Parts: sequence; C-alpha cells; structure tokens
Amino acid sequence: MSRRAGGRAGRQAARLHAVAEKVPFITRTMAPVEVLSEEGLELVIENADTILEQVGIDFRDEEALAAWRDAGADVQGERVRFARGMCRQLVQATAPSSFTQYARNPANNVEIGGPHTVFAPAYGSPFVRDLDRGRRYGTIEDFQNFVKLTYLSPWLHHSGGTVCEPVDLPVNKRHFEMVYAHMRWSDKPFMGSVTHPDRAQDTVDMARILFGADFLEDHPVVLSLANANSPLVWDSSMLGAARVYARANQAVLMTPFILAGAMSPATVAGAATQTLAEALAGMAYVQLVRPGAPVVFGSFASSMSMQSGAPTFGTPEPALVLYILAAVARRLRIPFRSGGALCASKIPDAQAAYESANTMQPAMLAGVNFILHVAGWLEGGLAMGYEKFMMDADQAGMWHSFAKGVDLSPNGQALEAILANEPGTHFLGSPHTLANFETAFYRSPLADNNSLEQWEIEGSQDLAQRANTAWKRSLAEYEPPSIDEAVDLELREWIERRKASFPDSNV
Amino acid sequence: MSRRAGGRAGRQAARLHAVAEKVPFITRTMAPVEVLSEEGLELVIENADTILEQVGIDFRDEEALAAWRDAGADVQGERVRFARGMCRQLVQATAPSSFTQYARNPANNVEIGGPHTVFAPAYGSPFVRDLDRGRRYGTIEDFQNFVKLTYLSPWLHHSGGTVCEPVDLPVNKRHFEMVYAHMRWSDKPFMGSVTHPDRAQDTVDMARILFGADFLEDHPVVLSLANANSPLVWDSSMLGAARVYARANQAVLMTPFILAGAMSPATVAGAATQTLAEALAGMAYVQLVRPGAPVVFGSFASSMSMQSGAPTFGTPEPALVLYILAAVARRLRIPFRSGGALCASKIPDAQAAYESANTMQPAMLAGVNFILHVAGWLEGGLAMGYEKFMMDADQAGMWHSFAKGVDLSPNGQALEAILANEPGTHFLGSPHTLANFETAFYRSPLADNNSLEQWEIEGSQDLAQRANTAWKRSLAEYEPPSIDEAVDLELREWIERRKASFPDSNV
Repeated sequence: MSRRAGGRAGRQAARLHAVAEKVPFITRTMAPVEVLSEEGLELVIENADTILEQVGIDFRDEEALAAWRDAGADVQGERVRFARGMCRQLVQATAPSSFTQYARNPANNVEIGGPHTVFAPAYGSPFVRDLDRGRRYGTIEDFQNFVKLTYLSPWLHHSGGTVCEPVDLPVNKRHFEMVYAHMRWSDKPFMGSVTHPDRAQDTVDMARILFGADFLEDHPVVLSLANANSPLVWDSSMLGAARVYARANQAVLMTPFILAGAMSPATVAGAATQTLAEALAGMAYVQLVRPGAPVVFGSFASSMSMQSGAPTFGTPEPALVLYILAAVARRLRIPFRSGGALCASKIPDAQAAYESANTMQPAMLAGVNFILHVAGWLEGGLAMGYEKFMMDADQAGMWHSFAKGVDLSPNGQALEAILANEPGTHFLGSPHTLANFETAFYRSPLADNNSLEQWEIEGSQDLAQRANTAWKRSLAEYEPPSIDEAVDLELREWIERRKASFPDSNV
Repeated sequence: MSRRAGGRAGRQAARLHAVAEKVPFITRTMAPVEVLSEEGLELVIENADTILEQVGIDFRDEEALAAWRDAGADVQGERVRFARGMCRQLVQATAPSSFTQYARNPANNVEIGGPHTVFAPAYGSPFVRDLDRGRRYGTIEDFQNFVKLTYLSPWLHHSGGTVCEPVDLPVNKRHFEMVYAHMRWSDKPFMGSVTHPDRAQDTVDMARILFGADFLEDHPVVLSLANANSPLVWDSSMLGAARVYARANQAVLMTPFILAGAMSPATVAGAATQTLAEALAGMAYVQLVRPGAPVVFGSFASSMSMQSGAPTFGTPEPALVLYILAAVARRLRIPFRSGGALCASKIPDAQAAYESANTMQPAMLAGVNFILHVAGWLEGGLAMGYEKFMMDADQAGMWHSFAKGVDLSPNGQALEAILANEPGTHFLGSPHTLANFETAFYRSPLADNNSLEQWEIEGSQDLAQRANTAWKRSLAEYEPPSIDEAVDLELREWIERRKASFPDSNV
C-alpha cells in the first residue's frame, strides 16, 4: 500500500475539485479581544500549576501512567502530580504553535493556529431535527446529508466529525461509515473516531488509504476530539484514541468539557483555571507520546441552570471563560479551540439565535483558531438541526466579512466620493457606489429585508421556514466531489473486510 | 412656579420609589474593543475635517446660519464650510465629556459618558406588534404600556422617548401625552419631543413643572434625539428643537442616520467618516447655542440591501462603523450613542435575534455610552414588538453580568475549592458552589433550559410565546410610581390649557 501511496498523494494533491464557491479559512486582521490583564492571565496560569502540583490529574490508563512515571511526574495509583511548570514546558517545548491540516483537495487545507480561524459544523448529537419531521434519532443518511451541506457551504472550512450519531448503525461499526462519508462526500478536512482506540486506528488506516501512508507521516490529515472527564480526570478510551492519533502524527483537540457549577466551581476564573489544568496535562501527555505531534488546547464551557442543573448557553459567564482561555493559549503559543453557535433551545427560534450569536461573537473576537459547532447545534448538543445548520452557516459567512476589518484604501475611505457629492443628494447613482455595490456588504441568502407587504405575499415565513427551503434545495443540487475510483474501491473493500472481521455490537 | 420649585425638587430628590428591582446603569470594567489603529482613527478624523472644509454642511435654518457667520465659518447660502479642526475645537472646548441625566427618582439618575453605558428602549415606530393582534398602528395605550414595561425592567435604565407613535392622537398634540406618560408612569429619565421647536419647548416647560425651573438650569433632565438629514444636511425642525433644549441646558443626541450606500458611500470607512463630519457640525452648533450644554455624538448606521435598497441590520459592516466611531468619540472625549438590538425581521424569530445580538454585541464591546433601541425593535424600526421587547430586555440583563468582567478575588479564583475537591467528584455539593450558586450565573426568566420532555409538557413554546406570557403578566402586575399629587395636577392642567390653545392637526 505504502509503495504506491506517494503517487496517489501526488495525484490527489494535483486535483482541484469544482465546488460552488471556494472560500479560504479566516485570517483575522484585528487584535483579539481580551478581558484580563497580563497579571490576571498570569494568576490563572499560576493557579493551574498549583492544581497540577497539589491535586494532580487522574489518568485512568496504565500506558499513560507509565509514561508519566518515566517522564518524572509523581505517580501514585492513578493520580499524577506535576512539578510546577512541567506540563506547560512539555507542551511549549515541542507542540507546534500552528499547523496545517491537509484535505484531499489541497484547496481546502486549513491552518490551525496563529491569526487563523477554521469553522466546523456541530458534533455529537444523537438526534436530528427538521421542521417537517421534528426530532428523531439520527441516521447515516442524516450524517451524509450534513456532510453534503457542509461541503456545499462556502463558509464552513472543515467537514467536522460526528455531525450526528448514525443510530441506525451498530455502535462498534458506525465509525467506518462516518469517516467514509467525510472522505467520499466531501473533500474538506475532517475529524476521526475517538470512542475507542481501535476506532481511532481504523480512522488512521482509512486515511492512509486515502492519502497514502507516507503522506500521513508528516501531514496531519485527521483532527480528533478527546474530552477530559472533568473534574481532573482523563480516561482510557479518550487517552487511547489520542495516543493512536499522536503516534501517527495526527492532530488532537484536548478538551475539558465543563458544566460550571457541576464539573468545576461556579465562578468564571475557577472554571477557566481548572480547564487550563486539565488541558495542559492532556496536551503534555500527547507530547510525551510523540513530541511535536499537533495538539490543540480545547475548551467547552457552559454555565449551569442552578435551578434545574441543565446546561445554559449564550450566557455571559462562559463568554468570559472563553476570552480568558483564548488569551492564555496565545501566551502559551498553542492553537485554541472552542464551541461556536451553541444554544439550549430545542428549536431554531429566537432563543437559539440569541444564544448562538452570543457564543459565536466571543469565539470570533477572542481569536479562537478552531471553532467546532459553528452550524446546526440545538438542545445543548442533543440535536442537530437542518434549519439551524443553514441559519448558522449564513452567520458564519458574515464573520468572513467582519474578520477582514476596515478597508482604509482610498476606495475604502471614499473621500473623493463624498467630496464629489452635493449635500442632500443620495449616493445610489454615485460612481463609487456603482463600483462597490456588488461587494460592499455581506449578502445573506436567508435574511428577509423586504417590505412587510412583500414578506406577506411570500408567505410570512420566519427564518426557520426559509432555511427549510434552503437545505432541501442545497441537497437536491448537491454533486459529490470526484474521487480516484481505485482509491474509493480500496476504501470500500477495506471497510467491508474490517466490518466482517468482528461481530456487530451496540457498545 | 420657580419660587416653590426648589422645595419641590428637594422633595422629589428625597423620595425613593419602590420598584421591583433597582439596578444601576452599567459601569464597564474592561477595555473597549477597537478595530482601527491610532493612525486609522486619525485618518478618519482628518478626512472628516476635509469634508467639513471642502464640501461643508447645509444648515437649512436661518438662525443657525447667522450663528455660524458670527462664529467665523464660511457661510454661502445654506452651505457652511469650516476651517480644519473648527468643529472639533468648538465641541472639545466646552462640551462635557460626561454628564448626569437626572430622573424624578434620583435612584434612577444616569451618567452618560466615560465608562458608563445606559440602556433605553426602541424609539420611533409607527406600528406595534404582538402575537395576539399582529401588526397594527401604535396608540397612546401601547405607548403607556411600553413606558410601564420599561419601568418594570431592571435592565433598562432609561424610559426612552417615542417608544411608539401614538397614532390615535393628533400629530401636533401627541407629544403632550408622550412626555406625560414618561413623567407619570415611570420615574426613570426620558427623552423629549423633537418634531418641532414648539414641541421641544413644551417638553422643557413640562419638565420645569415636574422638576422645578431652577433645577433644570444646571441639571439635564431631558435627553433628545436630533437626526441629521444625511448626506451633509441639518434641517430646521431638528436644529430648532436642539436649540430649545440646548438653551435650557438640556441634553441632545446629534445623530446622523445613515443607510450606507444611499445616504453615504457604501464602504465602512466612508460611512464612518461622513457620520463624523455631520455629527461634529451638529454638536459644534449646539455649543454655539450654549457653550457647555450636554451633547452626545450619535451614530445610526445600517447597511443597505443592494438588491432591494432596504436597510439591513446585524450585518458585519455597520458593526465595524460602530467600533470606529465609538473609538473616535473616546479620542474626542465626548459621550457616544448608537443603536442596540436592531433587526430587519418583521417578527420575533431567529432572524430578529441573530441580528439584534449582532448589533448589541458591538455596541457593548465598543463602549457605547447611550444605547437606544435596546428593546422592542422590529422591522427596521417600523414596528415595536411586545414579545421582542421582553426578549431584548432579558438580553440587556445578561450584559450587566458580562460588563462586570472577571472576578479575580479568592472566591472568584476558587482555587481552594478546586484543591479541596477530589478528581472525578462533582462540585454540586461543594461549599464553594453552595455559597455562590445564587449569584454565579445570570438567570434568564425567558430562556428554556429544561429537557425536551419537560418543554413539551409545557406546550413546546418558542421564546416569543414565553415572552407573550411575560409581558402580559408584567403589565397586569404593574403599579405606578407615586407622584406628588399637586405636581401631577399642575402638569395635567397645564397640558389641557396648552392643548386647548390651538387646533388639532395631523402635520
């Protein structure tokens, strides 16, 4: 396999597929927003060190414990304690501050780190929802639909991972069809399976078929999400999966998933500090596995309804956590990941939109490098919404315009146009307006800006109803990116062989 | 009247009315967000000076033209041209960088300028909308309802002005009942009439009855909104009203209302520069009328749908305009005003919410001092929505939490709590959580964070439906703030005398 891989990788790299519109990942032009002073950030970092030193982290994984013992950490049972600064130094010594994740279509490669921001769809919902059928368990058809919709959106740079759970497939074989869907129905970069180390290995093996084994060795092509089991625990399935990817030089997001008040203290600084401690220990372990393997500092922070215990989104406190941790990541010179358009609402209503906008705003302004859950998220992540997906993708488009910042060229300043225009005379026919109107403003395909009368003639539709029409039209117009048929055949044959080699199971 | 005014003002000042909850205006703790470098801001200021010097501004008002002639500006017909820096110098020499607007309940006084942010409801809609009755012309009853809802919201600091047009009253006598409603059914600060200089004078006269004439002389109690007639025109009704207020030492917002592409060039820097030129000329005129009169630099910037010509909101370009102008206002040391929760959507759906959140975010982060249209705005300002009002007011509440920033006290750091907690053990029963859970997170009264099952049991309501219940309950529970009955009687008698003194008219 590896013999012919170089040639195949070469052919892959040479081929640029036609999609409706190609938009590169975002390169921000403005200074990120910060909410703490340098002293405040230093305090958070120092406190995280104190946690790592005094309490430590449980690594529920023998191989990880052995590695920590060898590295000189204080290991007692499952508990690992770290000399002050040890985790930070491990991370900073070898983890790249920015890396390229390669796509099978090189035009879709993304840069993760620095001033760059990459958008990926929502991840992990067992349910899907649309206006026609309501909420139901996700299927592989839904999964493929979201891969296709993501492929078609110029504003999503990354195909994501578990865009929904394909509940119609056995748990222990879903990953084959999920990874294949990303590989076949899109040509954007994607995420791998993390629910078991074997499934991570399957992901890597499939990527070797698609990209060539040699190519993988120094080209990250899979990015995968490992969640901590907060507070202060990394468990064996996530560590095992992360290890498989790191050994193959593939990228992992080490992400504490924190519902503040339950999995951490209820305060902003407390949640941020604990997140940092957990992530540092996880990222440092990745560097022990393979120094230099790409790793991303992830944070998923939600506040908790202190009445019901349910997670809440789009609220002020998680926004502050996000601003803090993005700033810390910049100081540590490691890429940072957060959630995007998060909400608790069950349906794509105004609650969903307020909450989603109030999560995307800090994610963008804080300078997050990889934003997961940019499109589709509903019901605290329990459901992936078709209409919500289209609405969020439109919002993602707006951020491309914002991130460019202010054009201060002579055309942008428009001074000549103003000087040439009589007071009281509109600019609609001004040569400057005519020269700029095509590109002056972001054009939303979903927002209705018509008169009330026109809107009523068109059926008085709300945004969700217009989004319903839009996703159906997109799916109807979808055409798959081309793929080397020999590679596709090899992938399918490999998958079928692997599937046949062990029995179905729902664990 | 003025003889006994001091006593009345004293009684007013001594009385603290009971409302459900008192929350002061916001004092921001974090650095404002800026999108341009100092050089970029300087360029915008220089270009505005070039516009004022070379094109100038049309002042369609004889009294203003005479004042400009006296001040040494170059006046030719209605056109006034200014030596470079003249308008800026006039403003900076005497306009206060921050001022207090006094309320009849001193607990509701607001500070406009500096690190403070004051929230006011939406302004100017001829229509109102609710879920039960749809969209219809506003009435004085609707007007009173919005004054009452604003009074009841702890998150709105200011009663606003034309919260909707009371279309059931004659145009030339509406202002009496509008101003009276603010005075009687609320005790928060309010805005005055600007549609005619006589109506501005009526507002001032009514304020003299309520507060005492002497009190007004050195206490701004009315804030009023004068819009430029962009591009580059100030007309006589707005200038006349502004003049009445300035002479009485009352505050005015001098606000270019710009639909970029129509009333200014289509570029961000162009729209910002023209806004600055117009506002500077308007504010400078206020300082000519009465040096030291409080004046606020206002901006209302919207992008235009280049297909339909309709205004669009919550889009990236107006956000950038807002960030630029707030930063310029800080450099000029003058208070700054923008719009808050703006949207083009006709109904309180996801479009309304995305757009509103995407307008409030930059308004808050840019450090705007007075945010108008924080609650209720629909349909590009054509309709005031009851449900939208409640939804937006809830969002305004969240901003109070955000603006406080990160608590880095020992309790906020929560280090002891984390050190005392075993890895893998949740924090729900931690003494730190128990001590903080009441105040840890902003609690939305409208967001639904329950399980899908619970939400379905409660009727599967969207946010607008819950907001519908909420505004009805609020109005049912409303109790007016107490008022000195002699003052109230004097106000009513004065209004009836004035009303009887000239015939009704609908112009």
